[in-house]
Amino acid sequence: MRMAELARRSGLPVATIKFYLRVGLLPPGRPTSATRADYDDAHVRRLRLVRALTEVAGLPLEAVRAVLESVDDASLTWHAAVGSAHTRLSPTASPPTADARARVRALLSRQGWSRSADSPHADVLARALDALAGLEHPVGDDLLDVYAAAAASIAVHEVASVDTDDRVAATEQVVVGTLLLEPALLAMRRIAQENVSARTRG
Amino acid sequence: MRMAELARRSGLPVATIKFYLRVGLLPPGRPTSATRADYDDAHVRRLRLVRALTEVAGLPLEAVRAVLESVDDASLTWHAAVGSAHTRLSPTASPPTADARARVRALLSRQGWSRSADSPHADVLARALDALAGLEHPVGDDLLDVYAAAAASIAVHEVASVDTDDRVAATEQVVVGTLLLEPALLAMRRIAQENVSARTRG
Repeated sequence: MRMAELARRSGLPVATIKFYLRVGLLPPGRPTSATRADYDDAHVRRLRLVRALTEVAGLPLEAVRAVLESVDDASLTWHAAVGSAHTRLSPTASPPTADARARVRALLSRQGWSRSADSPHADVLARALDALAGLEHPVGDDLLDVYAAAAASIAVHEVASVDTDDRVAATEQVVVGTLLLEPALLAMRRIAQENVSARTRG
Repeated sequence: MRMAELARRSGLPVATIKFYLRVGLLPPGRPTSATRADYDDAHVRRLRLVRALTEVAGLPLEAVRAVLESVDDASLTWHAAVGSAHTRLSPTASPPTADARARVRALLSRQGWSRSADSPHADVLARALDALAGLEHPVGDDLLDVYAAAAASIAVHEVASVDTDDRVAATEQVVVGTLLLEPALLAMRRIAQENVSARTRG
């Protein structure tokens, strides 16, 4: 298909698509003349993915690039690719305190998740605990366990729903599900808060 | 206290604090001379809050400003203030399809959350459903219900832990808990995915 059709089917302006081509977020089409190229369904799909990652998941373009590289890296198993995409997305900031790290290690141990003791997500968690303690809103282990149980119930359903036959498709499915369902999960938590607080506090 | 002490206690560079004063994220201190001012514990606390919202919750400064305005607005009840801060934080994008809206309304009805049918969070959820369907990874109602049950179990514990005696303190507690625990919740979901997928898929 031509560029105009690609724009129509992806819902993105031609100028945006040309920008994505220039910065390498979209692979080039098959040239048909000096100034024209032919695009296929894989291009439509890639543009929809970029659009969802920026508009719905709210990722900056550098993070989108990291996700796409993981999806495209044929040397990774799907589990490793997801781990890699997750890792690249984790915010970098000052390291957590030893106390917060110890609390996270204890939480992981209680949940049977000790294999993630060195995961960057464990550091994200520890930094959140530090920030809340610094603001005099410390979070108790009981609330952490409630969060962990909620996360576990979600993860079991999510992992069970992945089809692993095609590695690239499966990786895209996991990455997309992980990133696009993050705003969905946060929106549901806020909806639940609105309803629970309205019911209990009027 | 002097500016140098404020920098030490907040963990922020003097230049950053001066920038926050200039843009109004930090209220001015009490002037003690033409070039000096005196700051108190409220300034330390506000700077820690700004730092946590930017470094841990990853909010841009405009969103931080919206959160602070809600915390400071004495005309709002704490529940309304949280609603207001949440609303301002929701990403703005193209409206969801009627199909996605209908699925979200049905979900809210199943969960007894119909009061949030017009909430901006319901639109966030509907946009995520649209994006996933557009990428050919539609999400089933069973998974949405798993997410909703997880969100409900979290919200019940969170709302029960709020102390409402002092409105500004309670609002800050809810806003901070909501925003700073978001990265914590997402980190736990990813840790849970790592562990569940490693266990079930090797």
